[in-house]
Amino acid sequence: MKINGRHYRTIWLAADGWSVEVIDQTRLPHRFETIGLRSVDDAARAIKTMQVRGAPLIGVTAAYGVCMALREDASDASLDRRIAFLAEQRPTAVNLRWALEEMRKAVQNLPHDRRVGAAYARAAKMADDDVETCRRIGQHGLAVIEAIAAKKKPGETVNVLTHCNAGWIACVDWGTATAPIYMAHDKGIKVHVWVDETRPRNQGAALTAYELGAHGVPHTIVVDNAGGHLMQHGKVDMCIVGTDRVTANGDVANKIGTYLKALAAKDNGVPFYVALPHTTIDWTMDDGREIEIEERSADEVLKMPGRLPDGAVVTVEIAAPGSGAANPGFDVTPARLVTGLITERGIAPATRDGLRKLYPEGA
Amino acid sequence: MKINGRHYRTIWLAADGWSVEVIDQTRLPHRFETIGLRSVDDAARAIKTMQVRGAPLIGVTAAYGVCMALREDASDASLDRRIAFLAEQRPTAVNLRWALEEMRKAVQNLPHDRRVGAAYARAAKMADDDVETCRRIGQHGLAVIEAIAAKKKPGETVNVLTHCNAGWIACVDWGTATAPIYMAHDKGIKVHVWVDETRPRNQGAALTAYELGAHGVPHTIVVDNAGGHLMQHGKVDMCIVGTDRVTANGDVANKIGTYLKALAAKDNGVPFYVALPHTTIDWTMDDGREIEIEERSADEVLKMPGRLPDGAVVTVEIAAPGSGAANPGFDVTPARLVTGLITERGIAPATRDGLRKLYPEGA
Repeated sequence: MKINGRHYRTIWLAADGWSVEVIDQTRLPHRFETIGLRSVDDAARAIKTMQVRGAPLIGVTAAYGVCMALREDASDASLDRRIAFLAEQRPTAVNLRWALEEMRKAVQNLPHDRRVGAAYARAAKMADDDVETCRRIGQHGLAVIEAIAAKKKPGETVNVLTHCNAGWIACVDWGTATAPIYMAHDKGIKVHVWVDETRPRNQGAALTAYELGAHGVPHTIVVDNAGGHLMQHGKVDMCIVGTDRVTANGDVANKIGTYLKALAAKDNGVPFYVALPHTTIDWTMDDGREIEIEERSADEVLKMPGRLPDGAVVTVEIAAPGSGAANPGFDVTPARLVTGLITERGIAPATRDGLRKLYPEGA
Repeated sequence: MKINGRHYRTIWLAADGWSVEVIDQTRLPHRFETIGLRSVDDAARAIKTMQVRGAPLIGVTAAYGVCMALREDASDASLDRRIAFLAEQRPTAVNLRWALEEMRKAVQNLPHDRRVGAAYARAAKMADDDVETCRRIGQHGLAVIEAIAAKKKPGETVNVLTHCNAGWIACVDWGTATAPIYMAHDKGIKVHVWVDETRPRNQGAALTAYELGAHGVPHTIVVDNAGGHLMQHGKVDMCIVGTDRVTANGDVANKIGTYLKALAAKDNGVPFYVALPHTTIDWTMDDGREIEIEERSADEVLKMPGRLPDGAVVTVEIAAPGSGAANPGFDVTPARLVTGLITERGIAPATRDGLRKLYPEGA
């Protein structure tokens, strides 16, 4: 998508044809800076320090890390060692391990002198495939926005509420939850986004607001408490969020607080959609209640980073001194509250049958 | 309640017998400081700058402001001028105007030399009446907590979730939503409070956590997004919140986000109580949907105060530069989601009949 009028992906091959550049996401939203990754160590550091974040982007960055490692040493021993090294940078990221195994498969049976070329080709395809998946999600979601717009008076705005960041900045381009929004905006449909700030890490106020603003999509930040009130007053036409895992019955694990918005949507007759690539579906789990929820650091609740008037970025303590905090990272929205699952193959009802119909091959 | 083992009210007569002392709430939770108010100007400044906050406390502070004004000049002209001056410090505070009219009634028909004594007596009674109202709310709410505790194994903790600050620090003592909690704790019932941080102004993380901690009540701060997840997992036995206005049909206006917690409580079979003195009931309004919701400054969403590691208190910008925010201050929880209204006369169902039965005299 665009940043100040120029089109970007989150990762791209540099002019030298072998190193890659990425947007340094640890600086967002306070500063926009790109950094060059010129070695597998650079790629590993970018993943570990969250200069790149979001499952698809982490995977593609690791893929290019393998490319740069092979440029230095294309031996089997190097391949094994570097793949293990990259995998341990974010041990729980399933998509990171998948991307690294894809790279291994792409080169392991080739002679050493053909490995570098094959690796770059596989990494580029991985990036392009992610863009295509998000583009298709966007096309299917766009139809929902168009249907809502068609029921309004000409020129009336479609108001979409989203939670957290399932935007292009977590993918390679388009994003998942944001793809239909960007497509509607680019097509000239008047769309406005209510951006949940998304405490405790503020991915909404920081990242979603940043990328929507940079592309020129009208949006307004609200605290996570406000969405129910907005829906009561007819100010939300649809909700659309991303997800970390969808179980086989259609239950949706996503950022903490998603469940509360889904309840409010149900109570007010607002459609609630979840956007996802099929790789997010966990066919091995029958019910969202089986999902173990990560308990994260209390510091994320008790402290907050921000800009001082002079532009310096500092972290302040915001709560009563001595009080502790709990910080569950995700919640599970029961399938009964979900209007539809927007995938790259189309929109499925959030049911076992709905998912199986779109993905008869399953896992 | 107690602060570091010593009993406090939020306002008390100083040792000199005529000036008053208050806790400077603009310093909380970062520092505990008391300040002396030695003139009507001091009282006005404390109200305007929110060194004192919460409807009952503002009212009592203004009452003592009238006392100090009369000490300087007990004439009718002075009384009129000073009451008008105090009223304009927080123009929308209904309770402030009520308290000032009570003071006028208490002295206006007395000879000048008896006005000061009568004024101090009326102000003291106002403070004591508020304490007694909160104490009774606490007694009725305590019965609910005791009933929950009785269904648990001996020694098992009762988990209460609250939103915003309806604590003693907004009243003179006890608080409304917190009164049952303090009484249960003081009685030896094991009670633990989930404190919603309550964005955007963080009254939960800052004030509720502060006062619970200072009194020694076990509590844990959570972001406003977390409550639904906690309820899904059986970690909340009851919710109890305060309110700014209850309409005649039992609808509840309270801090933004209350409605989302009430939805989650309903979805998970968790009882949801609202604590209030009868003065909060608006008999003139038939339905909560008639309540106009105050739109507050975007800066409350986009900026946040906090402590730097060196103890300095600063305000940082937390969102994407250039993005705007909306900031509705309150929402309305429909009566159908409310288990009971805990008043100083007992617990009413959140219905027109329920309220009328407890308050047959009405407005």
